[in-house]
Amino acid sequence: MRTLRVMTNRRTQFVDVTAAVEKEVKASGITQGVCYLYVPHTTAGILINEHADPDVAADMEAALDRLAPRNGPYRHSEGNSDSHIKAGLAGASQIVFVEGGKLALGRWQGIFFCEFDGPRERSLHVKVVADSAR
Amino acid sequence: MRTLRVMTNRRTQFVDVTAAVEKEVKASGITQGVCYLYVPHTTAGILINEHADPDVAADMEAALDRLAPRNGPYRHSEGNSDSHIKAGLAGASQIVFVEGGKLALGRWQGIFFCEFDGPRERSLHVKVVADSAR
Amino acid sequence: MRTLRVMTNRRTQFVDVTAAVEKEVKASGITQGVCYLYVPHTTAGILINEHADPDVAADMEAALDRLAPRNGPYRHSEGNSDSHIKAGLAGASQIVFVEGGKLALGRWQGIFFCEFDGPRERSLHVKVVADSAR
Repeated sequence: MRTLRVMTNRRTQFVDVTAAVEKEVKASGITQGVCYLYVPHTTAGILINEHADPDVAADMEAALDRLAPRNGPYRHSEGNSDSHIKAGLAGASQIVFVEGGKLALGRWQGIFFCEFDGPRERSLHVKVVADSAR
Repeated sequence: MRTLRVMTNRRTQFVDVTAAVEKEVKASGITQGVCYLYVPHTTAGILINEHADPDVAADMEAALDRLAPRNGPYRHSEGNSDSHIKAGLAGASQIVFVEGGKLALGRWQGIFFCEFDGPRERSLHVKVVADSAR
Repeated sequence: MRTLRVMTNRRTQFVDVTAAVEKEVKASGITQGVCYLYVPHTTAGILINEHADPDVAADMEAALDRLAPRNGPYRHSEGNSDSHIKAGLAGASQIVFVEGGKLALGRWQGIFFCEFDGPRERSLHVKVVADSAR
């Protein structure tokens, strides 16, 4: 398991971490397997979506802010219940296949670290597991 | 990694791919392990839910269309920002255990390829990994 | 694959199963690997989020109940379409890394079995797979 650092600078922000994850896959030397991504935070998540046009990430950020409004009727007193809810909707983990020593992402896909209570310094755990010889 | 073709014929459509995935599991010859499903698209996803009554899938399609309306205030100019948002909510990957050479699905569970910008011809990546002997 | 029993006593209820899953990890004797969690139901899910303050889970339960209202315009005649939709949003599976013989959860993270059509007796499948020696 390796841990990447992710710096965020807005409250809700999708950060494209595709290149950083790809670098970990290359460093692992594994040519065929599964890359597991895990976010150890409760107000951040991880999503795979289009990263060719940055407007897509902007639209997703805004949509999640509408689905979980900051000023809902919440009990949790830290003022970030919406952040926890968005993290739950995005999810804490993702998997991507590794083929030919590279992430087998679709043509338009990128990996986004999803900040929902920034700005902060965050961690992203990455593990690459080789398919067992059979 | 194997790739299944999925044909969709509506804009938002849950396609039951359980039988096709089960066939891949059988073809792998693996009796105990994990089946990984991965959608390489940014306007489609994969979900596990009830497939006994098709009304459940219809209700889920309609619910996602309400959560991410087609005509939101979006920046992305292709007119499918809602499709990207729904794909993010559904998720690009799923795992199912393999036991006794079969998918260990619950009694009412089926696997749905979730089209959010159809109709199209789509891909679904499937990988079956055997538990390592210990 | 092992199966834990989870008793729920409300219609929508996040049940903290962290300790029970940790016990399975310990029992597996695996020091480094991946813990897979799978819910074999169509009106329940699994999520990772803050379990230090129970108000966070309460806020997430309420938020999901607002996103998928009980009395939507639904086709499915069993009166639990909202439960299926919430299960889809939460997801049927999660992964957590195992490091040093323990779940590599973040400081505030706990694992929640998410009941959306309780009260019921439920199952949670757990599988711990060791990283293959290389």
